[in-house]
Amino acid sequence: MFESAEIGHSIDKETYEAEVPALREALLEAQFELKQQARFPVIVLINGIEGAGKGETVKLLNEWMDPRLIEVRTFDQQSDEELAHPPAWRYWRALPAKGRMGVFFGNWYSQMLQGRVHGHFKDAVLDQAISGAERLEQMLCDEGALIFKFWFHLSKKQMKTRLKALKKDPVHRWRISPLDWEQSETYDRFVRFGERVLRRTSRDYAPWHVIEGVDPYYRSLAVGKILLEGLQNALKAKSIKAPTPIAPLGESIDQLSLLQALDLSVHLDKHDYEKQLVSEQARLAGLLRDKRMKHHALVAVFEGNDAAGKGGAIRRVAAALDPRQYRIVPIAAPTEEERAQPYLWRFWRHIPERGKFTVFDRSWYGRVLVERVEGFCTPADWMRAYGEINDFEEQLSNAGVVVVKFWLAIDQQTQLERFQEREEIPFKRFKITEEDWRNRDKWDAYAQAVGDMVDRTSTEISPWTLVEANDKRWARVKVLRTINDALEAAFRKHKK
Amino acid sequence: MFESAEIGHSIDKETYEAEVPALREALLEAQFELKQQARFPVIVLINGIEGAGKGETVKLLNEWMDPRLIEVRTFDQQSDEELAHPPAWRYWRALPAKGRMGVFFGNWYSQMLQGRVHGHFKDAVLDQAISGAERLEQMLCDEGALIFKFWFHLSKKQMKTRLKALKKDPVHRWRISPLDWEQSETYDRFVRFGERVLRRTSRDYAPWHVIEGVDPYYRSLAVGKILLEGLQNALKAKSIKAPTPIAPLGESIDQLSLLQALDLSVHLDKHDYEKQLVSEQARLAGLLRDKRMKHHALVAVFEGNDAAGKGGAIRRVAAALDPRQYRIVPIAAPTEEERAQPYLWRFWRHIPERGKFTVFDRSWYGRVLVERVEGFCTPADWMRAYGEINDFEEQLSNAGVVVVKFWLAIDQQTQLERFQEREEIPFKRFKITEEDWRNRDKWDAYAQAVGDMVDRTSTEISPWTLVEANDKRWARVKVLRTINDALEAAFRKHKK
Repeated sequence: MFESAEIGHSIDKETYEAEVPALREALLEAQFELKQQARFPVIVLINGIEGAGKGETVKLLNEWMDPRLIEVRTFDQQSDEELAHPPAWRYWRALPAKGRMGVFFGNWYSQMLQGRVHGHFKDAVLDQAISGAERLEQMLCDEGALIFKFWFHLSKKQMKTRLKALKKDPVHRWRISPLDWEQSETYDRFVRFGERVLRRTSRDYAPWHVIEGVDPYYRSLAVGKILLEGLQNALKAKSIKAPTPIAPLGESIDQLSLLQALDLSVHLDKHDYEKQLVSEQARLAGLLRDKRMKHHALVAVFEGNDAAGKGGAIRRVAAALDPRQYRIVPIAAPTEEERAQPYLWRFWRHIPERGKFTVFDRSWYGRVLVERVEGFCTPADWMRAYGEINDFEEQLSNAGVVVVKFWLAIDQQTQLERFQEREEIPFKRFKITEEDWRNRDKWDAYAQAVGDMVDRTSTEISPWTLVEANDKRWARVKVLRTINDALEAAFRKHKK
Repeated sequence: MFESAEIGHSIDKETYEAEVPALREALLEAQFELKQQARFPVIVLINGIEGAGKGETVKLLNEWMDPRLIEVRTFDQQSDEELAHPPAWRYWRALPAKGRMGVFFGNWYSQMLQGRVHGHFKDAVLDQAISGAERLEQMLCDEGALIFKFWFHLSKKQMKTRLKALKKDPVHRWRISPLDWEQSETYDRFVRFGERVLRRTSRDYAPWHVIEGVDPYYRSLAVGKILLEGLQNALKAKSIKAPTPIAPLGESIDQLSLLQALDLSVHLDKHDYEKQLVSEQARLAGLLRDKRMKHHALVAVFEGNDAAGKGGAIRRVAAALDPRQYRIVPIAAPTEEERAQPYLWRFWRHIPERGKFTVFDRSWYGRVLVERVEGFCTPADWMRAYGEINDFEEQLSNAGVVVVKFWLAIDQQTQLERFQEREEIPFKRFKITEEDWRNRDKWDAYAQAVGDMVDRTSTEISPWTLVEANDKRWARVKVLRTINDALEAAFRKHKK
């Protein structure tokens, strides 16, 4: 895989100097076209052998192009805020917005390679990391990002010569690499595992470009031209992706559905309700104060029919706690900054630190519910969302975040009665809008979407809980009990 | 000041229960009106004696109102990211957006009182902190925020009884206060310094409300009613503040101005330029690698006439450095999230950590330049901006941030020539817009605004550097040299 990057590529100075001015102008043009269109972000990953000119090339790109539109990020030591979140959080917070370019040093590939070369883990874990990277990049590309991956290569002999030269240069001496490249074995292991990583992660939508790093003219021109061509192609491409042909999800052929199978007649009388509510609230308060909570975070997702009682259920959860212990994030239309990012970005920014609890009042499931039913996104978009959401929740779970998801279900008659009540009671009238009435007409489409959602995203890691919510008391107690059971299970699992 | 909060205020249960339902409904109504209008944020500061019911009251408010629209923040231990920024950064990042309510525990008053009670500093430093709080709140209110400040009070005897009760209650036992309230002296000192703080910071726009904390019915109803009344008044008030009568800034009566006094004929020949540029770039690279840099951060602000060469100067600064060492923040129109916050918020979010360097391509001076000249804000707004900006830069400076500010000045003829050149050269055409031509017609108004800006914001802490920019070479070298001199001066000062 690295053979053709050890054959001594070089460009003579005259050729270089003759080609650079036109390349620079074209890159600047492309960069401003990118800014004007503000249609997609560009992510440039920089990896490879120490001393192969990674930093120098990025510096040069910043000189050639407009550095005001480029964000260079280096991910070395994690801050304590980063350590308290799932590992990918630090990358999500650094993603460039549409129209901008982000250059990532020390990215996910560096992390996995360092870990493997240092022997912190074996191939199985490396392969997990590779799959994670693939899924992340696939998702970013599906969301429109243009990804360039550059691997700067040197032969072992070239590297040794280069390291010797760098050591003498005061401008470079201060740089600290997390790997000890002077050990002969480091190079061998890095190249061996690098090969595995490149082979597995070079995909049509985000291929690797291996650049021989010896000759600065060659490597600069090579990178510049690849960037330019990629940018120009993406800028010329139609703004709307050709619709991917999607095999439709089958509809229930026997009219039986998960929601219909719910027994909505279950209920609690007032006395039982108050007793159980108080007891579950005390249990939740105790669990959140448990010292095992510092290894976990808690996320509760509330979805449900309009007027199913999400707000009331959330208030009963909150009432169990000191307001300093939780945050409630109401999900409404995305802001301008959120629209300039991949879909999941606006949820990642609200993921709690370890020890904390966040309630999502509606959530990332909007894409497979309202956006699907209302046609706000293409079938290809909501179809791939199931997998992206499962990946997302798996990352949360791996980092100790307990994810509890509720669908609060009521029947049409109950909804009608609640709508009417809301219209009559002054301080409830803000809870009912024209849109709520319109959504009622799409009852069956929503039921279908909910069924598909549960089928595809109710996982071992994070199962859906369908809550019979015709009786508000029953619903509130079930919500609290489910959260408590999930937390206890996580604590028990942790103990083992 | 606390006398009337030690007289045993209480409300009987019947009265309380009779009043709460209407209060709750009215609070909910007000809260949703607040959300609908999305015209201003509400900030609630919670302070006072340990055990006086601060937490309980906030919990109750979350039960009465819609907790989805309330953000409760507690500022205890600073994260390392917070420690690497000026102290106020943690408050700025937690400010509620317009239409929302933020409840701040452990806020700036808690910090200053704890420091003084612990004896970490004396009255002079307390008074500085008090002035800082006053300026912050004045600014927030001028930006439209509605601030409530609650001080929960107990007599010493009441406090002791209350602490004894809390200790037995497992729900409260886990809370850790940064002050040891069981020491008799702690109470005395807290009340003494609290009095000083309240006296000095109770202002018409953000008065303190002292609430006796013994009786839960009394304190809950008292706080609820104050909140409701304040909210209702603010919601009813006209959306546009009555214009404050402003004494106009005098115009130069002898046609002499700072900008006119600049000798724009200064220049560097190519040879001197290249020599000096390389030498200043090396100096900057060295200074940023200096180990003293870890106590500082660097902020460089670029303002100037259109086509004065800001971009080119910034590129020469960037060229001195590894792209991982700096960020360039181009300031354009504020985003939706930025418009929902006070003016300075969108600059606070980009203030670098210690050890880092951020370049602002245009800056917070937009308010006293383009916004003033174009009439995008009222005279009252830009007039107060001078003071707010000085406060802002003083906070940066106190935290070790070196702020260097450039006005790049060219004359009208030079601008005309550069505009024409930009229109002719393909890869420069994105740099010239209709707006640039329109701005030229306002040359004199801009000159006046620049003069006022320099007069009012060129301070000992952060002086303006006027850069003669008809000759780009001269300008670029002067910019680099000024940054280097400022950094060296900061390092020297630190040493002393």
